[in-house]
Amino acid sequence: MIFRQLFDHNSHTYTYLIADAHSRQACVIDPVLERSQQYLQLLAELNLSLAFALDTHVHADHVTAIGHLRKATGCLTMVGSQGDIACSSESLQHGKKVMVGDLCLQVLYTPGHTLDSYCFYLEHEGESFLFSGDTLLIRGTGRTDFQNGNSEKLFHSLHKQLMTLPKGTQVYPAHDYHGRTKSTIAEERSHNPRLQLSKNEFIEFMDTLNLPDPKMMDIAVPANLSCGELGV
Amino acid sequence: MIFRQLFDHNSHTYTYLIADAHSRQACVIDPVLERSQQYLQLLAELNLSLAFALDTHVHADHVTAIGHLRKATGCLTMVGSQGDIACSSESLQHGKKVMVGDLCLQVLYTPGHTLDSYCFYLEHEGESFLFSGDTLLIRGTGRTDFQNGNSEKLFHSLHKQLMTLPKGTQVYPAHDYHGRTKSTIAEERSHNPRLQLSKNEFIEFMDTLNLPDPKMMDIAVPANLSCGELGV
Repeated sequence: MIFRQLFDHNSHTYTYLIADAHSRQACVIDPVLERSQQYLQLLAELNLSLAFALDTHVHADHVTAIGHLRKATGCLTMVGSQGDIACSSESLQHGKKVMVGDLCLQVLYTPGHTLDSYCFYLEHEGESFLFSGDTLLIRGTGRTDFQNGNSEKLFHSLHKQLMTLPKGTQVYPAHDYHGRTKSTIAEERSHNPRLQLSKNEFIEFMDTLNLPDPKMMDIAVPANLSCGELGV
Repeated sequence: MIFRQLFDHNSHTYTYLIADAHSRQACVIDPVLERSQQYLQLLAELNLSLAFALDTHVHADHVTAIGHLRKATGCLTMVGSQGDIACSSESLQHGKKVMVGDLCLQVLYTPGHTLDSYCFYLEHEGESFLFSGDTLLIRGTGRTDFQNGNSEKLFHSLHKQLMTLPKGTQVYPAHDYHGRTKSTIAEERSHNPRLQLSKNEFIEFMDTLNLPDPKMMDIAVPANLSCGELGV
């Protein structure tokens, strides 16, 4: 398995490149439009063929590169259908398996941050990896106050879907604002303040955060509904 | 083995936390003063005891946390002696082995970026890791125009010491300015433009870069000669 974590400084987004070293098939998760050329160059340098470009959800803080990458490579794009997105090649579905060569990404439907939020779970050679989008962040979670976010659904997604994964699972989120690059399920279960709250406490906490809108939201959401190809 | 890569956005510095999961002994490489509290909190959350705080060289772009961490935890600090630094507990020496529990960090003397530049090489369960400081960056190298830097020495350090490591060795540098988090020896050997140059080409290239001084240099270098504890 070939694995690269790439950081976009502007939006604090992590993009993941995962590839099967034998077949050279690759997928990217949560790519950022402005960095498309960097991804394409890295794929070429590593002699990889892009099979899939996935978004964990319709992002509000950056424009996705999935449309651009599909045009450039012919890869399939996949996003959840709950965000009223019509441009992707296929819709993500809970329980679906995305095969990247011999690597199997298991799709988990984890609504709450948004109604169309998904995570990807991968087991490989005794290790397990969770690409947790904005559902689970390191010592935090995504917000729940737009795009049909729902704090009760997020509570259930976190506790029923993610906290039941193997403890040693490495957690790779879509963002971090403090320079952290990964965590584990055990670490988050013990030290993530929001995971220590009861359901009612969590709902009250999330519903009173009163955060300002993401500065890119009015551009990013409409652009992402066309896979980042608005006007192209 | 427990491994964490941590990023300081201000100086684009990567700090590494490496620990032996059995003995819970840990070391940090290239810690940044302003992030000391983050490191101490993470060590506590992961139930780790800090045995060593290492700098790959006297940095010119940020103030080191090694002195602060020594005061807070009683760990040993280690830096090369060639930078006229008198504050560290021990000097790094080529060939020295730093034992972090059962993990063995092999010290490589790799002058060139500065006269006191060292790298750390670790083998663990069939994988190998290079903490390459500013000697080898992803698709680049450190500059050679201050702190007794020397482009010919850097050429030799890169080709004789680092490019002779196993191809699959994962390369973790002290900085990246483009959101990349790791590379491999094979990847750098094939795609790092500076490693494609002959010795004479490399020396001419490095000696005519004409870069501005790092903005923190006048503060960071004197502070780092006292392990970041100037005036404390």
